[in-house]
Amino acid sequence: MSHSNTQVRLAKRPVGMPTAENWNITHDPATEPKDGEVLIETAYLSLDPAMRGWMNEGKSYIDPVQIGDVMRALGVGKVVASKADNISEGDYVSGPIGIQKYATLPANQVDKVDPSLVPLERYLGVLGMPGMTAYFCLLEVGQPKEGDTVVVSGAAGAVGSVVGQIAKIKGCRVVGIAGGEEKCRQVVEDYGFDACIDYKNESVSKGLKEHCPQGIDVYFDNVGGDILDDVLRFINLKARIAICGAISQYNNKEAVKGPSNYLSLLVNRARMEGFVVFDHRKNYQKAAREMAGWMAEGKLKAREHVVEGLETFPDRLLMLFKGENIGKLVLKP
Amino acid sequence: MSHSNTQVRLAKRPVGMPTAENWNITHDPATEPKDGEVLIETAYLSLDPAMRGWMNEGKSYIDPVQIGDVMRALGVGKVVASKADNISEGDYVSGPIGIQKYATLPANQVDKVDPSLVPLERYLGVLGMPGMTAYFCLLEVGQPKEGDTVVVSGAAGAVGSVVGQIAKIKGCRVVGIAGGEEKCRQVVEDYGFDACIDYKNESVSKGLKEHCPQGIDVYFDNVGGDILDDVLRFINLKARIAICGAISQYNNKEAVKGPSNYLSLLVNRARMEGFVVFDHRKNYQKAAREMAGWMAEGKLKAREHVVEGLETFPDRLLMLFKGENIGKLVLKP
Repeated sequence: MSHSNTQVRLAKRPVGMPTAENWNITHDPATEPKDGEVLIETAYLSLDPAMRGWMNEGKSYIDPVQIGDVMRALGVGKVVASKADNISEGDYVSGPIGIQKYATLPANQVDKVDPSLVPLERYLGVLGMPGMTAYFCLLEVGQPKEGDTVVVSGAAGAVGSVVGQIAKIKGCRVVGIAGGEEKCRQVVEDYGFDACIDYKNESVSKGLKEHCPQGIDVYFDNVGGDILDDVLRFINLKARIAICGAISQYNNKEAVKGPSNYLSLLVNRARMEGFVVFDHRKNYQKAAREMAGWMAEGKLKAREHVVEGLETFPDRLLMLFKGENIGKLVLKP
Repeated sequence: MSHSNTQVRLAKRPVGMPTAENWNITHDPATEPKDGEVLIETAYLSLDPAMRGWMNEGKSYIDPVQIGDVMRALGVGKVVASKADNISEGDYVSGPIGIQKYATLPANQVDKVDPSLVPLERYLGVLGMPGMTAYFCLLEVGQPKEGDTVVVSGAAGAVGSVVGQIAKIKGCRVVGIAGGEEKCRQVVEDYGFDACIDYKNESVSKGLKEHCPQGIDVYFDNVGGDILDDVLRFINLKARIAICGAISQYNNKEAVKGPSNYLSLLVNRARMEGFVVFDHRKNYQKAAREMAGWMAEGKLKAREHVVEGLETFPDRLLMLFKGENIGKLVLKP
């Protein structure tokens, strides 16, 4: 039985914000699985800021998506045909599905997930790459100690919201930065941050001064740009700045804006360190168990923002850069 | 017996490069020492890039020099009068003498030095603040391992030349960056670096590509600016960037130029960390002993650049920012 597949392929590398012309949508029969492979029907696809980087040519922490290839994406789905020993038809799995309705993947590239434990889309959020990023980057690079002040940008997002909640669990004062009243309300009321600065409507500097009276010990940066510079003005001795992303800079047509206040690192003997989640793959299971425990205790809340329509992907991706998603953005084909 | 003192005082905070109008030279009798104090006749004064920062208002790792005060400077000199138990007339000491012919200081602010061991001015160089900076910043922040590639900017300077030699002692490949043929020749021939890039006459990027075929594991940054950006393009996974200074930026009238390529930290899970030598004061003696041992073995060479005339200080200071000194710049009154 042949399945008709829809696939979103990279047609052209973007300069600045990606537009329709960067994509090519194709319709072909799905590839039948060979020995050791499975055929997956996509249930949910993860839309992530990192995708913008994967579209660029050149050396990064992962190879770029090649022109003509299906756009890379993590996803979850149901196995509809299997030629692998350890996976059966009807199983649910997560893996590098790509922006397509059906994916044919080697069984060793996917992990089984249990849809009876948590909603399926959650395996792309708090129990997926964003959750793992939050967990390992905060704990390993940020090294929060009880009583520290932790500032998180992109605080309403899939990563930031988890970072702040883990920092609260660790006994820190947590101040978020997010865009818009509704996001800030959610960050404080739903996720339990001590305060949230609305960068679209107030001065980040003033907000940091007000809400971080003891200075900043840990900054978890998802955004880069001016906000990183504002934070650098208020860091404490031996502060840790975890560079997890720089969403404000991903669509720049000119050079990235470097942090003019980086000499604050010198004055404060502070550290700025980059982080890539894939380095921690071998500890994902341990982290997922600990986070599932926090969720069961009600200490860790997650929210997914589900949008529909595989062919709407080019527009949906831009929601991330316009700050239009609230929580983890996932696409249902 | 009263000593006639000459003192260089900060008259006005500079914007950009300091000029004559920022200074006020005064002539008064030296202050006689009170109980617990010593009167020191200055032998050599240390001229350091950090001085430019001390002239600025505002929070830094050390209080700014106040308007009207004698300019802060480390120095060595001979005790010409003592009212302290542990220091006698005729002793030589190092301490925060300031730009003046005579200094009256509490005995607990100075350390005795032995002019028979090494030339007196060397206590301001390799056995003083620059040497301690090189030693602790390289070893603690840079953490060089055998076989690492270490890049050092300001390689012919008081700090950089020592950094490179210690990195060689630790078994690293060492590439310097310095301004001008003569400096580069010295860096390679006298200090034993594997290569030196002349940033005034060649492309730093090309030089790094050529001389660091295995990428860069440690960068010791004395200069900031474009060179920091060039280096960031070639760092390896888990690279360490020690921010020791940013001499290219100290006299900026506009905002400091932040490193546009800082997201290379993310891609490479690398770290940029600031450093202030005073944090390591309690281990200076240990470091000085180890470095004296290396000098005795001929593994560590030092060079001082002695200029004369206390009243020439305003011009001599600028030599640092114009790159006119070769080795540790010291002023003999």
